[in-house]
Amino acid sequence: MITSSSNTKVKQVVRWQNKARERREAGIFLTEGFKLFREAPEESIREAYLSEGALERLETERNLKEKLNRVGYETVSGEVFQKMSDTNAPQGILCVVRRPEYELDQLLNTPTPLLVVLENLQDPGNLGTILRTGEGAGITGVILGRETVDIFSPKTIRATMGSIFRVPFVCVEDLVQTIETIRKRGVQTYAAHLSGRSYYDGFSFQGGTAFLIGNEGKGLSAEITALADGLLRIPMEGRVESLNAAVAAALLIYEAHRQRQAE
Amino acid sequence: MITSSSNTKVKQVVRWQNKARERREAGIFLTEGFKLFREAPEESIREAYLSEGALERLETERNLKEKLNRVGYETVSGEVFQKMSDTNAPQGILCVVRRPEYELDQLLNTPTPLLVVLENLQDPGNLGTILRTGEGAGITGVILGRETVDIFSPKTIRATMGSIFRVPFVCVEDLVQTIETIRKRGVQTYAAHLSGRSYYDGFSFQGGTAFLIGNEGKGLSAEITALADGLLRIPMEGRVESLNAAVAAALLIYEAHRQRQAE
Repeated sequence: MITSSSNTKVKQVVRWQNKARERREAGIFLTEGFKLFREAPEESIREAYLSEGALERLETERNLKEKLNRVGYETVSGEVFQKMSDTNAPQGILCVVRRPEYELDQLLNTPTPLLVVLENLQDPGNLGTILRTGEGAGITGVILGRETVDIFSPKTIRATMGSIFRVPFVCVEDLVQTIETIRKRGVQTYAAHLSGRSYYDGFSFQGGTAFLIGNEGKGLSAEITALADGLLRIPMEGRVESLNAAVAAALLIYEAHRQRQAE
Repeated sequence: MITSSSNTKVKQVVRWQNKARERREAGIFLTEGFKLFREAPEESIREAYLSEGALERLETERNLKEKLNRVGYETVSGEVFQKMSDTNAPQGILCVVRRPEYELDQLLNTPTPLLVVLENLQDPGNLGTILRTGEGAGITGVILGRETVDIFSPKTIRATMGSIFRVPFVCVEDLVQTIETIRKRGVQTYAAHLSGRSYYDGFSFQGGTAFLIGNEGKGLSAEITALADGLLRIPMEGRVESLNAAVAAALLIYEAHRQRQAE
């Protein structure tokens, strides 16, 4: 059992919790909790750490115990585990997981892609929620502009509730060029915009569709908005000026899902 | 200018940031930032604090300066202001605001109420987002069970983006009894549930409607679910077991909004 927080592996995990660059260079991200351990592809788990006593809580979960034995794990004292954890009340399991990698072509490899394009989303919880909701609505994938918050941050991973393992995504350097590429491949792009003339349920999303989503405070840049084939509005009563970015994305992709089911 | 963090008013604000009970006893909540100051009803603002230099940033905002002069304010040094603030990068304005108070009757005083009932929502961001989205979708009000997170916590207030001033809400001791009351007043209650037989867009929400929303992890209790006139499902692809509570609420209330506009 690891009982010292100066243990090399412990120190490495703590750095990975806090440093996006080190996570990127190592090609990994961290997951915490039993749900994410259950959902992580076995072959992607590089290291697993259990806090003292967490194994007992797994007595009734034979599948998880077997998975743990197959991937191998180290036990860590409660105090040290708390240092490794990003949460105040850790469940007692933390994994180092290899990053999934996708190509843009994989997101487009279907007759009618349904994509979410994030220009510069800044809230990790919103990003994770968009992945989770996106899986629920059956999206084909997410495209992240270079200014969008790190998809592998602990808060994002937590908010995905496991969808990080299943929703394809690509981080792109040149978002303008990528949007031009997907348009050439027949995908119609839509931006929610106050100047949109029709409400979002007045458009057809049955063909290849991409929703362009901007920053929480500033919305989409003029440059990206100009690449939208259609400007749509989400109706807003009262004095609401905009919706939360994850809520707006949810309304749009679930409208697309509804239309596609009704086909 | 206040330059000492042992100033009585400063110490009181710091306690209010952290202690829900003290906020409740004083009948106030705190707001930060210019947007919330702009949207706060003038007669509700009890105290206003500006950090050194924040006034200069208001040069072009004559309306805000006039509002500030009418309500009165104190200037605080940057260092002390940071101590008073709940955020890492404060905008430099903080207000002590009197709590709005509503009666259940006010939420029902319309031919077809559209209500959100929160049994025991725990995430302040979700609660704030539900108020914000609720205002956008034109809901009549929110009913909060006693186990739901404090609606006046700084994180919730921030996430409402001002809707805290405009969406009526009541916090109730006995949620079961309140739901029975609104049903007797002709409001149909709906719960999202895995055993629901129809999707949410298969119900009519054109009459009085209340959506029952549960805890982020555990969903609704069996007791509250039993009070639902209808169990509905939100379609979920992939391996998603549930949606984020604020996202689920958004899909339901915007579906109701859509149906009511189409009338």
